[in-house]
Formats: sequence, structure tokens, C-alpha cells
Amino acid sequence: MKDQMLITDVRMPDGIRVNVSIAGGRIDAIGPDLQVESAVAREHGNGALLLPGFVEGHTHLDKTMWSMPWYQNEVGPKLTDRIENERRFRAESGHDAAAASLALARAFLQMGTTRLRTHVDIDTDAGLKHLEGVLKTRDTLSGVLDLQTVAFPQSGMLKREGTITLLGDALRAGADVLGALDPALIDGDPVASLNASFDLASRHQKPIDIHLHEPAEIGAFTLKLLLDRVEALGMQGRVVISHAFCLGALAPRERDPLLERLALLNVALLTTAPASVPVPPLAACIEKGVTLFGGNDGIRDTWNPFGSPDMLERAAQIAMRYDLRRDDAIAMAFDCVSHAAARGCRFADYGLQVGARADLVLVDAETVAHAVAARPVRKLVVANGRVVARNGMLTEDI
Amino acid sequence: MKDQMLITDVRMPDGIRVNVSIAGGRIDAIGPDLQVESAVAREHGNGALLLPGFVEGHTHLDKTMWSMPWYQNEVGPKLTDRIENERRFRAESGHDAAAASLALARAFLQMGTTRLRTHVDIDTDAGLKHLEGVLKTRDTLSGVLDLQTVAFPQSGMLKREGTITLLGDALRAGADVLGALDPALIDGDPVASLNASFDLASRHQKPIDIHLHEPAEIGAFTLKLLLDRVEALGMQGRVVISHAFCLGALAPRERDPLLERLALLNVALLTTAPASVPVPPLAACIEKGVTLFGGNDGIRDTWNPFGSPDMLERAAQIAMRYDLRRDDAIAMAFDCVSHAAARGCRFADYGLQVGARADLVLVDAETVAHAVAARPVRKLVVANGRVVARNGMLTEDI
Repeated sequence: MKDQMLITDVRMPDGIRVNVSIAGGRIDAIGPDLQVESAVAREHGNGALLLPGFVEGHTHLDKTMWSMPWYQNEVGPKLTDRIENERRFRAESGHDAAAASLALARAFLQMGTTRLRTHVDIDTDAGLKHLEGVLKTRDTLSGVLDLQTVAFPQSGMLKREGTITLLGDALRAGADVLGALDPALIDGDPVASLNASFDLASRHQKPIDIHLHEPAEIGAFTLKLLLDRVEALGMQGRVVISHAFCLGALAPRERDPLLERLALLNVALLTTAPASVPVPPLAACIEKGVTLFGGNDGIRDTWNPFGSPDMLERAAQIAMRYDLRRDDAIAMAFDCVSHAAARGCRFADYGLQVGARADLVLVDAETVAHAVAARPVRKLVVANGRVVARNGMLTEDI
Repeated sequence: MKDQMLITDVRMPDGIRVNVSIAGGRIDAIGPDLQVESAVAREHGNGALLLPGFVEGHTHLDKTMWSMPWYQNEVGPKLTDRIENERRFRAESGHDAAAASLALARAFLQMGTTRLRTHVDIDTDAGLKHLEGVLKTRDTLSGVLDLQTVAFPQSGMLKREGTITLLGDALRAGADVLGALDPALIDGDPVASLNASFDLASRHQKPIDIHLHEPAEIGAFTLKLLLDRVEALGMQGRVVISHAFCLGALAPRERDPLLERLALLNVALLTTAPASVPVPPLAACIEKGVTLFGGNDGIRDTWNPFGSPDMLERAAQIAMRYDLRRDDAIAMAFDCVSHAAARGCRFADYGLQVGARADLVLVDAETVAHAVAARPVRKLVVANGRVVARNGMLTEDI
């Protein structure tokens, strides 16, 4: 096969030393003594740790100011202050979602992320403008970065007439997932808001990813309404609840039945592992069989100057948030930005097995936990079978 | 003056562009048009942001494995598991506190920290061995790094006969501060433990820095006993309470009187801003006049693989823990690893004013918050009037 590549002398996360061959963008074979005489490209791993390409489960490429001049944040403290400020800023500043998203997406690739779900603002001021910008980025990087877009009503879905129509337009224009936001505390009508979301998703045959910031009891109330609709409409395996702070605030006897129902309905949870608010309980989720995966949320935007396109840094935040210290526990945090995220977002053919898409990262580290703690330079990043970064720098053709 | 240096074209944290002259290890003058014809060294700031040298308020240089092979953590979950494991590891592995502390202290300097308080284990297995190692590092870097050592009974003070004598020996051998640890939950006798600590500190005329991990009500109980002794013994301004998780768990009506008493007695608090446990409330501390400052705790040791000698990273953790997003709010997080830490640890002559020790950091950043979020390469680090790092690398003579 013309594009066959052999990567020699790498260590799998379990410590076994192998060679890996790649053909047609897929992992073709893995084995300790594997040789491929016909390989046209060879990479020497020199004993580096082999990791699957990282997965960003929740970011906002369209609103970043990564690689742009510093944005001095003087925004008020409320959620609605931040939403209003951002919409105004984007209308007035000439911020360009195409350029912004491309710069940040390239930084993700450079640091080893090969699959990414991004929420894109859809509102009555901007229409589909931001989505069009992000779809350009998706096209530009289509051979290497597996990018999902979520049509996200950041300013609420029911509050501004015309938003639902725009969301439908966004799904027709190429958005992969329908987004949603705080049906009670933003839209003010949890039943009507959820009904509108599920109706729209059903009509377009799209999955849902809802931002649920609603805390404690009100969050649990909305969550139950949501799960009823997943069940009634047969949306099992097609819904993600992002943030789900409420699950971090409930007592186990209220929380555990919700976790059991999430597992039964195969509804996944996304956390950014924020240090300042309650988070869904990772250990309990794993025990109950709920997929909990990780993401940054916004990266250096008008909301927040933090976040990083390095998913090993997000894994470290997750480990610290859940007080994971042992190597085997920190590997669970890495799972949140790799296998669990691929499962939650339904990225196809993910992993370090034969037949999977060849998304690979090589780092000098003893264990997965070492990689998370030290965040070493990415010696090699392979995306869809193609070398996209070497020694921390993108290759010239990316 | 022979060692006069002029740094031109830097921006103060308030944005004003100045030149800075240094003589005899001190800031000699600061001004927009300052010229010093006799300066023997000149550094061009090119508009970089000028920050005061960073302050690490709480770490454990003696137990780090920074710059050593990865330690695979398989330690049990309890505090006592970690203490026992560490003492055994240090006895059996040949871990050398002198080499370990020097490597990490140099990394701190490289990243802009010029003042540092380190707790050093004193116990009946190792005696003063670890302290002797750290004192070697203090001597090696004495011209540049202002290093305070705390004689710290990591294995408890009352539990092992002979520990109090060893702590006295440590203070005589050069430790600057008496450490202490959980008088109720580790020593099992809060009154006897605190009495022993305050007695020892009084006899040696040394300040105290106590690790108080005790949660909620039990922590508040111990804290009151402690404050009674500060008051009775006239130890105002000479006590730091590290961690103080309890203050993050109490309702305001129980918490605020404690904060008021801390302010009155000038007792400072240290937080590492851990994401997984309650933390003292920063805004309430500032409002009540309590100094709350920041530190890493251990860095890459048998307890925990995380932490970093980059205090801008700690400031970012603090900002995220307290949900600080605005530029002016993030500057408060930076204050925790600069001015507030110098105040809490009583490092002398700190700051960016004439007469202060010339500890300076130059970075390419628009604002203090930008520096915290982006953690740019340190273009120049000056410690005690001497250039110790340039473009992220230590100078050859350090």
C-alpha cells in the first residue's frame, strides 16, 4: 500500500514495547517484532510512550482569542453579563470565527488532539456566521482533524424569536449536533425548552449536547425532564449533558438513581472539572457505568482567559479536581480526554487497536500519569495516518 | 557604584513605562526618563511587563523528585498511608534532600521565584538529615534565592518520642520557622500538641507555620485553641496557618468571627488552592484584612505528581479555584504569590519600589492577568540585583 508507515520501538500504555504499522490512515498491525519491508516512511520511537490521539469533548473554537491580542476582561459577574458582553463584542470587534477557530484547531493538533467537538454560537444577531467560519476550519483540516460542530443557542433558544429556525438552518448547513442551554434558568420554561430541543433534534435526526449549568435541585429537576424525553423518543446513546453541576451537589440517595438512569439510557456527561463549582462524581459514574468525559469549555475568550489546547493539561485539571494521585487513578483522568470522550461524542474507530483510525501521539514519559503530570513535548503526532507535528511543531503542510 | 545596572523600557503592572536602576542589590531608582550614565550593565526591556520576583509560600523542596526518574505512585488513600510510605521510601531509596532541593530551587529561580518558604521533614528516623540537605541548597543559592526553612514534624510531634528535641535541634541548626501538623487528627491531643509547639517556638524565639488540614468543625476547634495561644503569648504577626480547609467549610456566621480574630492577631493563611477540598474564602479574607497567600505544597513527590516551580501556574490555579476571570481579579491571584506571600512569610524589602531588594521578572504580557493565563517565557529574572535567568534559561553562573 502506497502510504504505509512503520513506527518502531514505542511503549503501549500497559508498558509493552511494540512496532506499529499504518496503512490507508488506519492502524494496520501492532506487535513486538513487527516488520514491514515495504513501508515508505519510518519513524523511530526510541522507546517513547504511545498514546491515542487526544479528544477534546467540549470547546468553543468560534469564540476564542487564542493567537490574538490580549482581551482585557472587565465583564460583570453574572452568566447573562457574560453572554450579553460576548454577543456585543463579537458584533462590534470584527472577531472572525474562521480565523480564530483555525488558529486554535491547529494548536490542538500540534499538541496531539485529533478529534474535537466544538459548540458554535447560533443567535439572531449573528445567524449562522460563526458556524460558517468553523465549517471552513473543518474543511481546511478535514484530512487530519475529526471535528464535530454543535449548533449552540448561547443566548437562549426561546428568548429570541427566530432562534429555533436558525438552529434548524444550522443543522441543515452541516452542524452535527443540536446544542441547548439551561432550559429553566436561561429559557425560563424547562418543559417548553426541552420539548423544542427534542422536537428539533428528532426532525433533523441529530444527537443533542445540552449545557446544563443549573445547580442542585433545579438542575436535578431539569435532568429528570430531559431523561423522560430521551426515553420517550428513543434517543438512547445520542445525548450528552455538559457540565451537569447538579450531580455534584446532590446527596448520594438522590444522585445515584439519576446516575443509574443515565447509564440505562446511555446518556453521557461532560465535565471541564472546574475547581470552583460542584462536579459530577467521577468514581460513582464509573461504578454506575456512566460515561463521564472531559473538555476545556472556552479557551482564552471573553468569558475566561484560561484553558489550553493541550488535553494533557485538561487531564491534569481533572486529576486534581477529583484528587487523583496514583498512576492508575491519573490514567482514569487521561481516559476522560481519550477513550471516554470518543465514546461520549461517538467518534468512530478510536483507539490503539488494529483497524482504528491512526491517531497517535508519542511522548517521552514512563507512564500515562507521567505524561499527564509533566506534559512533555509531543515528539510525534499522527492524525488519520499522517504526521502532523514533530517535536512540538506542526509540519509545514498543516 | 560598581554593580549598577539599568533596565530600560519596561511596563509596571499599572501600565506606566519606566526605566529601573539597580545598585548594591537594591532598586535604586524608577522613572520614565531615568538615565544612569555610569551603569556597567544595561538590559533592554523592549516594553516587557515588569513583575516583582515571585514568592513560593509553601513547598517541600526536601521531598521532591523533580529532575529525577518518575516515581510510580501506588500509595494508599489515607493521609497516614502517605506519611508512612514517604518515610519508608526516603529511608530505603537513598533519596538525597540536598540534590533534590537544589534541582527544584534552581527551577524556581529559572521561572522567576526569588523568595521561597520550604517545610523540611524532621522525624525520628531521619533526624536532621533532610534539613542539612536543604541548608546546603540555601547556602549554595544564598546570593540569589531568599530561602526560609520550616522544621516540620511530618510524622507528628507527640506520636514519636524525641521529635520535640529534634525540632529544637533543627531550630538551633538554622531552621527559620517551627512547623506543626494537625494537633487533633494527627497528634490526637490538640491542647498538648499546641502547647508543645508554642512552648518550643517561644523558647527559640521563632515564628510558627502550622499545617492545619483538619476539616470543618474540628478544624475550627483547633483554630480557636491556636488563636488563644497567639494572643496569650504575644505571637501576633508571627504565625501562619497553612491550608486551613476548615475556613472553607464553615457558614459565614461561624467563619467571619474567626476571620476577624485572624486579622486582629495578624495571623496569615496559606492556600495551595486545591480543587478537591474547601479553601479559605479569598474575597472574605481580603475584606476582613486577613493575609491569604499561595504556594504549591509538594511538587512531584511520593504524595502527588503535580505542582510546578512556575508560580504563575500556581496563580492560575488560585484564580481558577476562586473563579477569578476579570483582569483585576486575576491580579489578586498574582498578589497571592507575590506581595501577600512576602507579607505572610515576612520576607523583607519586597516589591517594586526604591529600596526594595532587586528581585525582578520581565515577561512579554499585556497585563498581570495575561502573564498568569499565558505563563510566557521569562525574558529576564533578576535576583538580589543579579541576572539569574534569561529567555527561560538560568545563566551559566547559577
